[in-house]
Amino acid sequence: MSGPPTPDLIMMLGLGFWGSKTLLSAIELGVFTELANGPRDAESLRSQLQLHPRSARDFFDSLVALGMLERKNGEYTNNASTDLFLDRAKPSYLGGMLEMANSRLYRFWGGLTEGLRTGEPQNEVKEGGEDLFTALYADPARLREFLGAMTALSTGAHRVIAERFPWSDYQTLIDIGCAEGGLPVAVARANDHVTGGGFDLPVVGPIFDQYVRSAGLSDRLRFSGGDFFADPLPEADVLSMGHILHDWDLGKKRQLIASAYDALPEGGALIIFEALIDDDRRENVFGLLMSLNMLIETVGGFDYTGVDCCGWLQDAGFSETRVEHLVGPDSMVVGIK
Amino acid sequence: MSGPPTPDLIMMLGLGFWGSKTLLSAIELGVFTELANGPRDAESLRSQLQLHPRSARDFFDSLVALGMLERKNGEYTNNASTDLFLDRAKPSYLGGMLEMANSRLYRFWGGLTEGLRTGEPQNEVKEGGEDLFTALYADPARLREFLGAMTALSTGAHRVIAERFPWSDYQTLIDIGCAEGGLPVAVARANDHVTGGGFDLPVVGPIFDQYVRSAGLSDRLRFSGGDFFADPLPEADVLSMGHILHDWDLGKKRQLIASAYDALPEGGALIIFEALIDDDRRENVFGLLMSLNMLIETVGGFDYTGVDCCGWLQDAGFSETRVEHLVGPDSMVVGIK
Repeated sequence: MSGPPTPDLIMMLGLGFWGSKTLLSAIELGVFTELANGPRDAESLRSQLQLHPRSARDFFDSLVALGMLERKNGEYTNNASTDLFLDRAKPSYLGGMLEMANSRLYRFWGGLTEGLRTGEPQNEVKEGGEDLFTALYADPARLREFLGAMTALSTGAHRVIAERFPWSDYQTLIDIGCAEGGLPVAVARANDHVTGGGFDLPVVGPIFDQYVRSAGLSDRLRFSGGDFFADPLPEADVLSMGHILHDWDLGKKRQLIASAYDALPEGGALIIFEALIDDDRRENVFGLLMSLNMLIETVGGFDYTGVDCCGWLQDAGFSETRVEHLVGPDSMVVGIK
Repeated sequence: MSGPPTPDLIMMLGLGFWGSKTLLSAIELGVFTELANGPRDAESLRSQLQLHPRSARDFFDSLVALGMLERKNGEYTNNASTDLFLDRAKPSYLGGMLEMANSRLYRFWGGLTEGLRTGEPQNEVKEGGEDLFTALYADPARLREFLGAMTALSTGAHRVIAERFPWSDYQTLIDIGCAEGGLPVAVARANDHVTGGGFDLPVVGPIFDQYVRSAGLSDRLRFSGGDFFADPLPEADVLSMGHILHDWDLGKKRQLIASAYDALPEGGALIIFEALIDDDRRENVFGLLMSLNMLIETVGGFDYTGVDCCGWLQDAGFSETRVEHLVGPDSMVVGIK
């Protein structure tokens, strides 16, 4: 705290895209998938990945310094996290999410200044292309990978919800915008009496069915296809929405909350979980930046605080609301009808 | 250290470009220059900067969460560092460096994967444009701002060199690739007996002269114009090169070291300072990533360790070499002829 101010923190943050892009390129090039097969020295890893000799060693050692690889006696290996999450051959691979960040978001965030001036998205839509979801849902292989990454990303939050929510008071759960069904599977595994399933666009059905089948839960969890803006939501004691509301403007957020209210019985619960911004809007960097990501990616989406969300729930008629931190940047809001 | 691995560090790094680009856009938009005039609430800051209402508050609060702004009673202010280094009206402004990162480097780093595969630069050169230095040196206003940012960035290293190097053993110093002359000014201020100056391309002369004049040191420090690859270096007891060698391939590095050796008297010293990579190549993230930046920006440049540099100095005939850490990522190598 003494001495004159230094520019170190400013430079680290301002040039922070260097380290970020280095990891994204490593995922694109398959560094972690290759090293999941065993340790490799610099030359063997370089030739396997078909890199030019000029900067390969600087690249690998940057990944060591960034905490993404280990190096011992001149041989590189994954660490426990990168081996679990960045090896394409494992079901826990979440690199699909970061591959998308690499091939799309990095470039689109280059338009942040323009986005802040105009309030307009800076992705394919700006270039006259399809919006993210349309393009994604039109390509089954890419959709499967993306939804798998979503599951991997939310595993921690799903586990905490499965353990901590008072499931003994409820019989049925439907997750709205369910993707593979990561939350219903986690809840059903931890709570033998719970049945239900997930609701998403019909194209997601086979991906949900396969995931639930491989978890051995097809007898308790079913898929319902539909459009959550056009169709009523399925009825259940508990409805949940994870990383859904932030994609939409306030009117559509309220519409989704109202649809959930209509579908719940008296005493039923709505669980909304997301990288909630802290109420004082000064701590959860990830939640705040995610909201800027909604500027880049969507027409009206934004992230919000627990207080914001409780207010919308109360306006919709929910009699009781509470906010609980889950894990990392994620928290949940619970509303009781 | 307990529990299963989480994806948090991977996601923070992989999406680290979000926070980085947020700071770069804030500098571009003049957030810190505006707030140097006094506190502003969100609406007044937004309208002053002509931002769209949609995401302005998320943008400002992201800067708070990233540690770049403070907020008290709804009013935003700079912190001590951002006020000193990111206000365009102050001579300590180093935003010129980050403006360049924003307008050029962010985009060019998007080509990192290709650079790693080909070993080729990914900047204007790839697009058939002029190289960085040619473009920069052709535009006096931009050059002045860039050189000012360089001085601001190196202020800490200059101060330590001025205090710690045994100047009492030497009378004269010429800094090679001197830019504004930040190092000679710092050394002359702290050591009344030292005279000398700086050597750089002739276009830098007026900028050096102005900086030295405003420091009141024109009687002790002079500018010499020349090309350090084509011309012999000026003679002095001490020659220095700060953030110069890493721009060039090994042959040119050795050529510059040999030219310095030729220009020094017996017992003279060469000081090379730079974000040296640690000898074990696993700690200094900034030095390693700077080397990847040399891939993006130059035909053959790369960063290096203290051991690497001492070897080149010994090959050139220097009888004694040592490495000392300066401040932040910077260290110096000293070679005695």
